[in-house]
Amino acid sequence: MSLCVNTWINMGRWEADAAGRFRAAAMELFSEIGYEQTTVSAIAERAGLTARTFFRHFADKREVLFDGTERLQQLMVDSLSQAPAEASPLDAVAAAIRKAGDFFDDERRPFSRLRAVVIAAHPDLHERELIKLARLSGALAAALRTRGVEEPDASLAAEAGIAVFRIAFAQWVAESEVRGYEEILTRSLARLKALTAH
Amino acid sequence: MSLCVNTWINMGRWEADAAGRFRAAAMELFSEIGYEQTTVSAIAERAGLTARTFFRHFADKREVLFDGTERLQQLMVDSLSQAPAEASPLDAVAAAIRKAGDFFDDERRPFSRLRAVVIAAHPDLHERELIKLARLSGALAAALRTRGVEEPDASLAAEAGIAVFRIAFAQWVAESEVRGYEEILTRSLARLKALTAH
Repeated sequence: MSLCVNTWINMGRWEADAAGRFRAAAMELFSEIGYEQTTVSAIAERAGLTARTFFRHFADKREVLFDGTERLQQLMVDSLSQAPAEASPLDAVAAAIRKAGDFFDDERRPFSRLRAVVIAAHPDLHERELIKLARLSGALAAALRTRGVEEPDASLAAEAGIAVFRIAFAQWVAESEVRGYEEILTRSLARLKALTAH
Repeated sequence: MSLCVNTWINMGRWEADAAGRFRAAAMELFSEIGYEQTTVSAIAERAGLTARTFFRHFADKREVLFDGTERLQQLMVDSLSQAPAEASPLDAVAAAIRKAGDFFDDERRPFSRLRAVVIAAHPDLHERELIKLARLSGALAAALRTRGVEEPDASLAAEAGIAVFRIAFAQWVAESEVRGYEEILTRSLARLKALTAH
């Protein structure tokens, strides 16, 4: 694993709370000694906190990588639900995946990059990521149905949106990528429209 | 599980070979006594064959549900690769998912329906299905890149195609659905285009 841990020196808002300190400590250790070798005690020691406190925030070390999932899903579903009534299904989904940009800012990028490296190296984490995306797609389709969109349109728009989201996100965490999430996403959405136009 | 096992009386081509007999026997048992309760010995007994012969065809009972995966993927990748050079990325992907109709004919439909019921009831099987679809999407994107399609277009077209495939397939196995796979697929593709047109 070649990601430099110096990116962690300025943790900003994450240093303020225990969960953030555990997260930073865990990511440092995943990067330095690998995911398997990292124990909860080592994470707690590095964070200057106790293992007991760790378990108040996370069920296990894997949860450090996935604990933002539910908040992200809620953020996206809310954003879809609040899209103007006249927005097309795809535009409502686009509003939701654009809103995810509140999560994926420059401060979070080093965490997201390292997380992507760890997940790519572990099939069980990759599976969990797939399940998470499938759930997210299901939640967006349900929110579209609540707006009166019928099937299969609701599922198709949600799945197409998740495809755009996933590919934009993969680009955003790529090491050589300098563009921000919103710029990449706008481009991906435009490409989807171009690809399906003929 | 409420699917009627009488649909299995006419197994057609599947009765001719051992794998087909195991498949039919396993699906009968999954339907009658449930997936967990079904053992390999019971499958073998019902098929009138030995457990030893079962293991020459399948690694375990789960494989009965997934052993067509690789053939399906190869069929789809070959079909994409053979699409006319002037076909758009989405049209090449559409050719691949249309080709999957060779697999999903009326004879297979009772198997596919029961398989869908079993998978929906078991999170670990559902995960395996998600992984299978993610791999299929990756294989189609790779085949597009071989045709000279650049990223992110290759991944976007593959993912959008897999979204259409998955939703069309879910409709095809729905109990009340009478339309054939090709008809459902054509409609799904048209809906995707309509949804992304504005």
